[in-house]
Amino acid sequence: MKRALFICLEGPDGSGKTTVTSLLYEKLKASNYDCIHTREPGGIEIAEQIRRIILDPQNTNMDAKTEALLYAASRRQHLVERVIPALNEGKIVLCERFIYSSLAYQGYGRKIGFEAIYDINIFAIEDYFPDITIYLDVDEKTGLKRIESRNNKDRLDLETIDFHHRVNEGYQEVLRRFKDRIKIVDASKSLDDVVSDCMDIILKELS
Amino acid sequence: MKRALFICLEGPDGSGKTTVTSLLYEKLKASNYDCIHTREPGGIEIAEQIRRIILDPQNTNMDAKTEALLYAASRRQHLVERVIPALNEGKIVLCERFIYSSLAYQGYGRKIGFEAIYDINIFAIEDYFPDITIYLDVDEKTGLKRIESRNNKDRLDLETIDFHHRVNEGYQEVLRRFKDRIKIVDASKSLDDVVSDCMDIILKELS
Repeated sequence: MKRALFICLEGPDGSGKTTVTSLLYEKLKASNYDCIHTREPGGIEIAEQIRRIILDPQNTNMDAKTEALLYAASRRQHLVERVIPALNEGKIVLCERFIYSSLAYQGYGRKIGFEAIYDINIFAIEDYFPDITIYLDVDEKTGLKRIESRNNKDRLDLETIDFHHRVNEGYQEVLRRFKDRIKIVDASKSLDDVVSDCMDIILKELS
Repeated sequence: MKRALFICLEGPDGSGKTTVTSLLYEKLKASNYDCIHTREPGGIEIAEQIRRIILDPQNTNMDAKTEALLYAASRRQHLVERVIPALNEGKIVLCERFIYSSLAYQGYGRKIGFEAIYDINIFAIEDYFPDITIYLDVDEKTGLKRIESRNNKDRLDLETIDFHHRVNEGYQEVLRRFKDRIKIVDASKSLDDVVSDCMDIILKELS
């Protein structure tokens, strides 16, 4: 079945975005929906090159605004090369993270401010807001515990507890400002229940 | 002599920025001014990494807005790591190209528009406008002839005549909008005369 729909999965580190999105992808495929599962940089060569600069643990002296501009650049290229073409082919796009992540991480985590991050991201995405955004809601402690158990920590995982706390505050502001655009799913439930809640939201939009 | 001053040399490709700036640097040093000669990415590792992505001739599918965000990111890091520290040490900073180049190249050359490019660059530079900007004014034909004679053409040099024509139009708009901030020097004169005209402008500011 063909039905262009841009779905974004959001939430802090350790909220289960990758696991949940993978299962949603499988379920939609099994129901014969034509869909892709992606996240920035998503195999787009230019976006990959940009992401390598952001995540390089050697780049400790990267300015917060440089980082914010690089995220916006990576987002733009991924959108243009991967998301828009898939939507134009009538596919469902399941994308982990989008503009809301930058509002939380750069706007609040890095203290650059909500409006400034919003503006450079609108430059990047124009009016390509996701049709549905699902926020995987997990308490801060659970999220942090999951990050700690990861190997191969990158530059962002190594941030302080304070940083992750500000990111959570940022997401709360995102949820307030975009309450009409974002559906909240309780991600402390069992994985089956979380996926089921997400599928209900998606199938309602598709029906 | 210590005297913090941020000087920017602007102009289209082939206007002689590098040659003129090098000679200005020598003259200021000879007059015992403490100064640096730089241009983005200016040896700043993160900015160099960003610039390699922009100029890689393989990256033919780079979106114009991705490019604009990468230039702003490179500019930000160079400003924070190189320009501001030098100014804080009381040095004269001679910088080839700055925000005005992006207004001409991305705003007009790439057709993204003046205001949009201005906004993302203000995010990057905040209020760090150069104290003096000198525009090396050269007619389009002369500029293009000089580019053609270069070896090792990078991705930007390979642009069409149309692109370079739009860049020139962009610079004309820059000169109109920032007429109080920019001094125009006739770069079709002999090199000695051009350097002398620039020195007059700089020494007047220093006196």
